[in-house]
Amino acid sequence: MAQNEQEASWSRVDEGRHDTTIEENWLFALRKERFRSRLSGLTHDFFVVRLADAVHAIAITPENEVLFVRQFRAGSGRDSLEIPGGLVDPNEDPMVAGPRELLEETGYAGDPPEYIGALWSNPSLVTSRTITLVIRNARRVAAPKLDHTEELTVEKHPAREVFDLIRKGRVDHALVVAGLLWWQASEEKFSRT
Amino acid sequence: MAQNEQEASWSRVDEGRHDTTIEENWLFALRKERFRSRLSGLTHDFFVVRLADAVHAIAITPENEVLFVRQFRAGSGRDSLEIPGGLVDPNEDPMVAGPRELLEETGYAGDPPEYIGALWSNPSLVTSRTITLVIRNARRVAAPKLDHTEELTVEKHPAREVFDLIRKGRVDHALVVAGLLWWQASEEKFSRT
Repeated sequence: MAQNEQEASWSRVDEGRHDTTIEENWLFALRKERFRSRLSGLTHDFFVVRLADAVHAIAITPENEVLFVRQFRAGSGRDSLEIPGGLVDPNEDPMVAGPRELLEETGYAGDPPEYIGALWSNPSLVTSRTITLVIRNARRVAAPKLDHTEELTVEKHPAREVFDLIRKGRVDHALVVAGLLWWQASEEKFSRT
Repeated sequence: MAQNEQEASWSRVDEGRHDTTIEENWLFALRKERFRSRLSGLTHDFFVVRLADAVHAIAITPENEVLFVRQFRAGSGRDSLEIPGGLVDPNEDPMVAGPRELLEETGYAGDPPEYIGALWSNPSLVTSRTITLVIRNARRVAAPKLDHTEELTVEKHPAREVFDLIRKGRVDHALVVAGLLWWQASEEKFSRT
């Protein structure tokens, strides 16, 4: 997994002894964590949201359609058109979590996943990364299995129309857009070489 | 601004009377907000982080290089290579905030900004959107003006190498990747038509 490996310019202070936890629940912990600049020696307490990594899957049918799920999102207060995905369980391999989320949310399964990439979801505040996978030959093999507050509808859109969905504002979740456009840029690079 | 305008499938309950604020500070408010499903009638308390919108600018020099800033990010615990940007001030137009952030962080200014798009940063949890602008003919006109805990270094990379920076994991901030790839996909569409 490609990462920026150079040493960070700020480091934790006194092994976290000055850090505080403001809120902790089943989903995340909100903390203040103290770091010191290696350059200036200044310390600063940063807000940090400790949240699990997420994985999402670009599932492509034999008809070259991409699977989407539409669901309510409380941050935007709107329904959001997204690719299937969710949080990676503790110690779960994202390459396992991706197909699991796809099956739970849509009832679809396909070929073994291909790894596209991992991005920090919002590294100024949140510890979570989002991993993007591609799953080809996706076919409906079961009924979706949803939590009681998950209300999803499944949609299929032709792969060639994906950028139009973004450009027109129909797909407007930044993490979904990053994954979809990375995948499409990879395919174009590949088709050119 | 293109948006998904259809009615949300969940709505706020009792005008927020059951909502609670867990934490409120200069940067954000962490809340629990109650919504009711129009489909099932079930209610659920969702975590919501109320955070201002952000704007970032793809600033392109006359030599067709893109400006980046490298800075520490506490969520990832690493230094992050990003395009210049920041939070939009209350009542500030993102088309004003983008050039302002570019000037403050890098000392560069250029042509009037072109609007690329707006994405929900993480709509399952956060109210913030990220707006992407392009600023051409960017030239250094001043010294950067940084807050005392902002330590930024400016880098320029050829526009044609942007996808390689992403593919190799050197640019790995999802919101930056979404903005850059949207811009590049727009340019390619434009160059084809």
